[in-house]
Amino acid sequence: MLGGEAIVGTLANAGVTACFANPGTSEMHLVAAIDREPRIRPVLTLFEGVATGAADGFARISGRPAMTLLHLGSGLSNGSANLHNARRARSPIINVVGDHAAHHLHHDAPLTSDVAGLAGPVSTWVRRIPSASYCGDHAAEAFCAAMRTSGPATLIVPADSAWTDGARIPDSPLERRTAWTASPAMIEQVAEAIRRASNPVLLCNGSALKAHSIASLARLEAAGVRVIADTFAAVQRRGAGLFSPPRLPYFAEMALDALAGTDLIVLCGTRAPVAFFAYPGKPSLLVPEGCETLSLATEEGDSALAAALLADALGAPRTLPSTAVAAPDAPAGALTVEAIGCALARHLPPEAVIADDSVTASATMFAQTQQAAPHDWLSLTGGAIGLGMPLALGAAVAAPERKVVALTGDGAGMYAPQALWSIAREQSDVLTIVFANRSYRILDIEYRRTGAGDPGKAARHMLTLDQPVIDWTGLARSLGVEAVSAGSAEECDKAVQQFLSRPGPALIEALI
Amino acid sequence: MLGGEAIVGTLANAGVTACFANPGTSEMHLVAAIDREPRIRPVLTLFEGVATGAADGFARISGRPAMTLLHLGSGLSNGSANLHNARRARSPIINVVGDHAAHHLHHDAPLTSDVAGLAGPVSTWVRRIPSASYCGDHAAEAFCAAMRTSGPATLIVPADSAWTDGARIPDSPLERRTAWTASPAMIEQVAEAIRRASNPVLLCNGSALKAHSIASLARLEAAGVRVIADTFAAVQRRGAGLFSPPRLPYFAEMALDALAGTDLIVLCGTRAPVAFFAYPGKPSLLVPEGCETLSLATEEGDSALAAALLADALGAPRTLPSTAVAAPDAPAGALTVEAIGCALARHLPPEAVIADDSVTASATMFAQTQQAAPHDWLSLTGGAIGLGMPLALGAAVAAPERKVVALTGDGAGMYAPQALWSIAREQSDVLTIVFANRSYRILDIEYRRTGAGDPGKAARHMLTLDQPVIDWTGLARSLGVEAVSAGSAEECDKAVQQFLSRPGPALIEALI
Repeated sequence: MLGGEAIVGTLANAGVTACFANPGTSEMHLVAAIDREPRIRPVLTLFEGVATGAADGFARISGRPAMTLLHLGSGLSNGSANLHNARRARSPIINVVGDHAAHHLHHDAPLTSDVAGLAGPVSTWVRRIPSASYCGDHAAEAFCAAMRTSGPATLIVPADSAWTDGARIPDSPLERRTAWTASPAMIEQVAEAIRRASNPVLLCNGSALKAHSIASLARLEAAGVRVIADTFAAVQRRGAGLFSPPRLPYFAEMALDALAGTDLIVLCGTRAPVAFFAYPGKPSLLVPEGCETLSLATEEGDSALAAALLADALGAPRTLPSTAVAAPDAPAGALTVEAIGCALARHLPPEAVIADDSVTASATMFAQTQQAAPHDWLSLTGGAIGLGMPLALGAAVAAPERKVVALTGDGAGMYAPQALWSIAREQSDVLTIVFANRSYRILDIEYRRTGAGDPGKAARHMLTLDQPVIDWTGLARSLGVEAVSAGSAEECDKAVQQFLSRPGPALIEALI
Repeated sequence: MLGGEAIVGTLANAGVTACFANPGTSEMHLVAAIDREPRIRPVLTLFEGVATGAADGFARISGRPAMTLLHLGSGLSNGSANLHNARRARSPIINVVGDHAAHHLHHDAPLTSDVAGLAGPVSTWVRRIPSASYCGDHAAEAFCAAMRTSGPATLIVPADSAWTDGARIPDSPLERRTAWTASPAMIEQVAEAIRRASNPVLLCNGSALKAHSIASLARLEAAGVRVIADTFAAVQRRGAGLFSPPRLPYFAEMALDALAGTDLIVLCGTRAPVAFFAYPGKPSLLVPEGCETLSLATEEGDSALAAALLADALGAPRTLPSTAVAAPDAPAGALTVEAIGCALARHLPPEAVIADDSVTASATMFAQTQQAAPHDWLSLTGGAIGLGMPLALGAAVAAPERKVVALTGDGAGMYAPQALWSIAREQSDVLTIVFANRSYRILDIEYRRTGAGDPGKAARHMLTLDQPVIDWTGLARSLGVEAVSAGSAEECDKAVQQFLSRPGPALIEALI
């Protein structure tokens, strides 16, 4: 058996069902192996950031790793920003990167680069296969590492390892992830601190925000603990009838306001809150002065279980009334972010997935959809914009029966618009909504917040996207995705209704 | 003076005139400094690979470094593939990357990453500014390093260094690059070896291929030395009336054929030729058995001067007849790469720049344009496809009076199509020709060459771009660039004639 076949066969045996690929010459034997492995679905991307972002979305929705297939150091670099986001989302990924044949490396051919060096900062595990006979075992280890570390495990495959015979698929059982869980004593210590506190907050992320945990969070809120979600969560279950904790605001001063008066922050699947960026003379740590912090579950821990045990320890009520809310009226008039949120809330089908990269529109969209049909909300965990559409592609491949909505800023969307082509190619059930404000709106705000003053002509040149105007409908159509432009609330509501009521790729350019 | 102002002022004093930017919050004080520095022209890009590729093109045409402005590790990663190409082109670049404020780093906010670690593999020099007072000196050192090492010098600027007062612009004179030159004894040794050899070859790259050196190469050829250019040169001067050495073919077996019978290879601004990729059972080194290699000038050396001195040492004739050739007839019939090359050769204005990322079309385009009006040909030095349009943007900013033609494969072009928007925004005089064969044609060839067999259905899915078809004219128009599609030789010739005879951005989708 060739090394490439052993890698692909081992991963298929472990349950890998998708490969988001942008291969080159050095990966041809891995392509050939996938060609002969019907259990793994290849999804071609035109740019590696689409492949890695899609692998992130796949993992967030399925809980299982997909494999990527990237070409040498340059391909890896192109995928790095979304690997960074995936690492922050704790998404398991088998990040397969080809390299030159081992004997070819010392010749320093043009595409030679330090693949392992480039992989380190965006991976939780990195391994280079030494020869064909190691291919199967190392692929198995990569799978285990991705699951154990909840992150991108980078497997570097020299071309000669993939094309050489003598490899085998290991039959040893594959390791499973075991998440750390709080001890009863620790649960009691936290419960006791909450009883003593006058204004306790539970700050959550990780599995605590997933579907099976929302009831526990509702019980904790009913027991007098104010529950807040991290600003950026890999997956947050929410919607009509579900307890839906607010998110900690993005801007540091608003986050500090939200936490003002808090004397205890219990951390459940997260760390003490910090500002996204530093600003002159402003604090980085967002814990109010004198407020105690206690860690109930780290990012590595099973925060859902910890929340459930804490609710029990506090004697929180077991059943809570569901809060049913009437659908909002159709929005009317000028197109605002609120109107787009209202349209989405009205028409979102149950069990949808929302992949959010809408930057300055995000807070309003999040608020407006609180009473939409139950859905999963996927955030920009690592802050590297350009994730929305790739993430949606991966979610749609993981769950073809669910409607996926990508929310993207126009600036953010232009980092990886190639995702639209793969969405069209796979006929993925993804509606993309582009918030076309024709600027890096967030930077226009941040420019002043950092104390840089008022932008002059040259600075405005670096913050605006209005010249030329990007025609998002033309762009989408050129890549095979049906698209309309909406300039009023009525047009937007109609387009959202139309595209959410039928399957397949579509894009709405929302002119706000 | 703020740190950011010292960086920008120092670079402007050193002669930096352009900044290819995609900034974020942590770079706002650098944006503000550029806002107040009229000597530096900011060019906004929507994706960092466009910024770094443009900086490469700027350096190749002007010989001077531009600055980039990238956002943290993720922005750097997005720009890495084209920094890799720039490093291989030996293009000086001041690669400015923002980072979190120093005191903010240990909080590990979402966008925190190992910026220096990500920079190392694609930079020839990396420095992190420790505080505001170092800003000016470190910017000066970055400039010197970029010139001295002929590569991307990465300057990491923590946000607090940029926003803090107490910086200054150094007035010390800036270092200049001094290239190593062959000694008279070494020139004589090489000349003697050439006299002894029965079939000597001079393999050239670097300054030996630039305008001021072509006459020396012609003299060497006249003296009985077969002159061959490296497959990928940063800049090669060529065209009607000029001696134009052939390129070493891309495919290893063709390169070996081209060098068959050679008993001496003199390396002039390059290293011994190696295969781009390894293949099972094929050699990596492309030097024929028994052939001697001698290094006249390394990649770091002044290969133009070395070639001139060698021509003198061999007593080569000083003046050579110019070879004037009539313009080819208009191409007719089905659209082929030959026909596109013919159209370009017919209509190319003098002093044009050709930025080539046309992959499988490159060899034919190179051959067809040998008798076009004199021009500079810029190659894909590092093999990371996606460089063509960004490189053209940078060349056009460096030399607004010259027509620039970007040649790109359709697969290659989709790595950084965002370049079209910046070309439109800057109204750069760039004609892009897309070779729309709707496949990764090179991989279709390489799949078989690596011995992976015949691609099956899944493999073909990963090698073809035909579903959906990318509408390049719609894509270009959506980003503000006028475009036409050409399906016949006549249509292509007309479009090339039309777009080359008037300034401004345009794109031709050549349906081959």
